Amino acid sequence: MTSAVAELAEALEAGDRRALAKAITLVESTRATDRARARELLGLLASPEAPTLRIGITGVPGAGKSTLIDVLGREAIRAGRRVAVVAVDPSSRQSGGSVLGDKTRMSGLAAEQTAFVRPSPTLGVLGGTAARTREVILLCEAAGYDLIFVETVGVGQSEEQVASMVDCVLLVLLAGAGDDISGMKRGVLEAADVIVFNKADGERRTSTEADAASLRASLSLRQNAAIPPVLVVSALDRSGVRELWAALSAHHAEAEAAGSFEQRRARQLGAWFDAAVDETLREALEKRPGASVAWGAARASVANGSASPLEAAQRLVEELLP
Amino acid sequence: MTSAVAELAEALEAGDRRALAKAITLVESTRATDRARARELLGLLASPEAPTLRIGITGVPGAGKSTLIDVLGREAIRAGRRVAVVAVDPSSRQSGGSVLGDKTRMSGLAAEQTAFVRPSPTLGVLGGTAARTREVILLCEAAGYDLIFVETVGVGQSEEQVASMVDCVLLVLLAGAGDDISGMKRGVLEAADVIVFNKADGERRTSTEADAASLRASLSLRQNAAIPPVLVVSALDRSGVRELWAALSAHHAEAEAAGSFEQRRARQLGAWFDAAVDETLREALEKRPGASVAWGAARASVANGSASPLEAAQRLVEELLP
Repeated sequence: MTSAVAELAEALEAGDRRALAKAITLVESTRATDRARARELLGLLASPEAPTLRIGITGVPGAGKSTLIDVLGREAIRAGRRVAVVAVDPSSRQSGGSVLGDKTRMSGLAAEQTAFVRPSPTLGVLGGTAARTREVILLCEAAGYDLIFVETVGVGQSEEQVASMVDCVLLVLLAGAGDDISGMKRGVLEAADVIVFNKADGERRTSTEADAASLRASLSLRQNAAIPPVLVVSALDRSGVRELWAALSAHHAEAEAAGSFEQRRARQLGAWFDAAVDETLREALEKRPGASVAWGAARASVANGSASPLEAAQRLVEELLP
Repeated sequence: MTSAVAELAEALEAGDRRALAKAITLVESTRATDRARARELLGLLASPEAPTLRIGITGVPGAGKSTLIDVLGREAIRAGRRVAVVAVDPSSRQSGGSVLGDKTRMSGLAAEQTAFVRPSPTLGVLGGTAARTREVILLCEAAGYDLIFVETVGVGQSEEQVASMVDCVLLVLLAGAGDDISGMKRGVLEAADVIVFNKADGERRTSTEADAASLRASLSLRQNAAIPPVLVVSALDRSGVRELWAALSAHHAEAEAAGSFEQRRARQLGAWFDAAVDETLREALEKRPGASVAWGAARASVANGSASPLEAAQRLVEELLP
């Protein structure tokens, strides 16, 4: 078992794409034995030699995030980067599963030799998702990809999660969605490091420029906060894509110079550690003698109403961890 | 200490609004001593005698959710219900804090004798939020409110959370947002039990009816899933509000008759129990002798890169729970 994991780690670090796909599947598996192997694999991987950049892509549904990643990723490849795309899919518990067809949506990028496009399915558990996506990012980096796009899919329960695992948040907006923008001001706009209006295609260009100018004006009133650049792009005719890549690179350079890049990564490592403690604790509890019987009894007492979830949890932990 | 909590429980169950507000503040506090008191309080409260109904309100930003709750809540009060409104605020970690001005936004409802409007601030922790909001719902029910609206605020990282704590999800849409609807189909639309197009005010009525008809047609193609009713409402001139309340009541009656109401609550109790186990475990670990030193060392090893978060978590748990 161990040698298989070591072989996988070696193939992955050699840049073998099939090994990367296999490692991602392993990391996303919920089976306890797979989880142990995934942890072993992650422990074997060295930190990437070259610095990496993680960019999160958030925005309203229909804003054309995938198409934008497609053209932006190819621009980054031309600038010498190796690009991986990871999707955080907040798909409902009902449907479960992962996003199919991502490769079709980013056909241009997926065809590049130095690009890797892979959705990251969620498990219907918010915390779990973030933990697994972080691990998938590390796998991609160990495989030699130095620019990771983390895309939110769907209506976006995951904006906050994505912001917690990337170096830079790119918010994609559409012109003419005034209400949406004011409605999203609270959280998403504040988390954005770079903002871009997409679909400034042909005759929509003028109205989009106007919306961008108006957003710039309102952002300039911000106090005690960095003011993100607001750009205009057409993923369709590719205008503005080079400028967008330049803005993202500039944000990276400024954050590195100011030390905020390192600070942010350190904060994220701390949050990841906290989540890992929770997960490890639960696994440790599950391994205690009598755990499954006690767990079953606690669950039953909640189900039949004889204990509240809080009481049952308290009793279970006291019983198994005396 | 204990007698103060018992007094609070008594006042709360007698329907004292100030006691309810105080209890909510206690439940939302992150201080360890408050947490213990909150758990004691929740343990003292009896289950409400009359059955309660929990309705989650989700939807695009700017769809007018608060205004709709305002008029819908008053309709429910006319039907004899006692209404509490709880908001799940996915506001960013940066801004933290709670929603101010909710009472202003729902001024009509807040003025009613049998209504209680209180936002539930988040702590920047997704899991924490859901756990606390569930507890706030229980407090409101113990205080005699039998209809609880749980509103998502902002751009909605919290749709999935809200769905996990209510009996019925009402999705609020706007006409003319075709892209938004198709973009949100994956998760949010699937989680909706009742769908309503809001702001069908005056001359927008016709186009809204058309959008509703088109959504009904596309939903009717669904396989293996319940098809939610699609209504049209104007919170402004209050047309359609009575019909919406009737649709929500009908959903409740059907779910009860089919047994799905009980099943859903049982599933939610199970999820709450799981979250409570995680929280209790972490608290138990923090109380172990040497915990704070070991925790600090583990954190430091993550920060200086000598251990990965997974390795550090593993070592910490092994050290404190031999």
